[in-house]
Amino acid sequence: MIKLTNTNRMSSNFLIVLGGRLEMIFYDGGAAPNARRVRVFLSEKNIDIPIKSIDIMKGDHKKDDYKKISPLSQVPALELDDGTFITESIAICRYIEELNPEPNLFGKNPKEIAQIEMWQRRLELLLMMPIASVFRHGHPAMAHLEEQVPEWSEANKPRVLKFFKWLNEQLEGKNFICLDRYTVADTTAFTCFEFAKWPKILIPDEFQNLKDYQQRLSERPSSKA
Amino acid sequence: MIKLTNTNRMSSNFLIVLGGRLEMIFYDGGAAPNARRVRVFLSEKNIDIPIKSIDIMKGDHKKDDYKKISPLSQVPALELDDGTFITESIAICRYIEELNPEPNLFGKNPKEIAQIEMWQRRLELLLMMPIASVFRHGHPAMAHLEEQVPEWSEANKPRVLKFFKWLNEQLEGKNFICLDRYTVADTTAFTCFEFAKWPKILIPDEFQNLKDYQQRLSERPSSKA
Repeated sequence: MIKLTNTNRMSSNFLIVLGGRLEMIFYDGGAAPNARRVRVFLSEKNIDIPIKSIDIMKGDHKKDDYKKISPLSQVPALELDDGTFITESIAICRYIEELNPEPNLFGKNPKEIAQIEMWQRRLELLLMMPIASVFRHGHPAMAHLEEQVPEWSEANKPRVLKFFKWLNEQLEGKNFICLDRYTVADTTAFTCFEFAKWPKILIPDEFQNLKDYQQRLSERPSSKA
Repeated sequence: MIKLTNTNRMSSNFLIVLGGRLEMIFYDGGAAPNARRVRVFLSEKNIDIPIKSIDIMKGDHKKDDYKKISPLSQVPALELDDGTFITESIAICRYIEELNPEPNLFGKNPKEIAQIEMWQRRLELLLMMPIASVFRHGHPAMAHLEEQVPEWSEANKPRVLKFFKWLNEQLEGKNFICLDRYTVADTTAFTCFEFAKWPKILIPDEFQNLKDYQQRLSERPSSKA
């Protein structure tokens, strides 16, 4: 693990930009999918950042102290060395990538950058969002956090399965979803598969490519993050 | 306007990466918000790309020919010079930014990059998506394109207004939403304001910062794109 200490940062190209104190704090959201996504990303980057835990189920994210960090109560958040707060998981991942370009997870040239962004967005908007809709609007455990619309939960179940079917076709002959190496799009895919277990949406047995892909991602050390 | 011709591209840093034929085609979706977003972005970049029109209301995006370009029938799409197709509006914008870094709209250093991504995502996920939900699930004109869930349309109306209120507060003393210059986050904000007119959601008069911001964005030449 690389610990982001002064010494490591001093060797970075971004010292002039960063300047000053060289520490970060990751405000983690435990099991929350977007917090998990950043932890998996950090693990793939082999980076360790000091963590403060935010317990969503206890409502920590809605307390005034945390709203100074994340005004919309979103988890996770990252405090930069100059005291700036960054929310939105992918914004946090991009910041980490800029400071620590290798292994490259966001693309090495314009075409790779566009392809990774396309796949990361497809997975997020067309798979993670429907899974979130099924869970947040349908699960009793979320009733105190969400003004639930049960009809919306129901409407999204077939969307998840339809996307699984399409993804299974897209994975034919591929080890990873976008390029021939692991990228942040795979981080998002893994996070989706894990999240889908919450509302008990399993990948149907006939989608063998998808099941194999999930298995490969699950065998990576980052899956424990 | 810069026309993306061989000559211009020859002067780019990315010639080695691109190589070969140096032409692109933008598959436009007319009034569709994500198509508009890319056109506004291109206008801010002062770039002109050959366009082919895809008429969503006529169902062009669901025809087999277009599915070879955009398998999920999404508009817009970009065909690269090597025949690769990129969908997802922000992926297209990133590709353009990589080829033509100035004016910079995605950030010049790690902190800017993270802040712009954070704001672009906030606007997209917490404003554009709720507006889309109100419109797509509530408007009669969308009934033939969407399996509508009217309850979801209704649930999102207050979300839009709640976000408008918060955005109005965030804009206090600011000309742009993220940095002290125009960025892609402002492109998304403008697209949202235009999209909100479809389901007739107007910015309430008491949100003066927000109304002024909308006005400033509307006065830019890119608003005509």
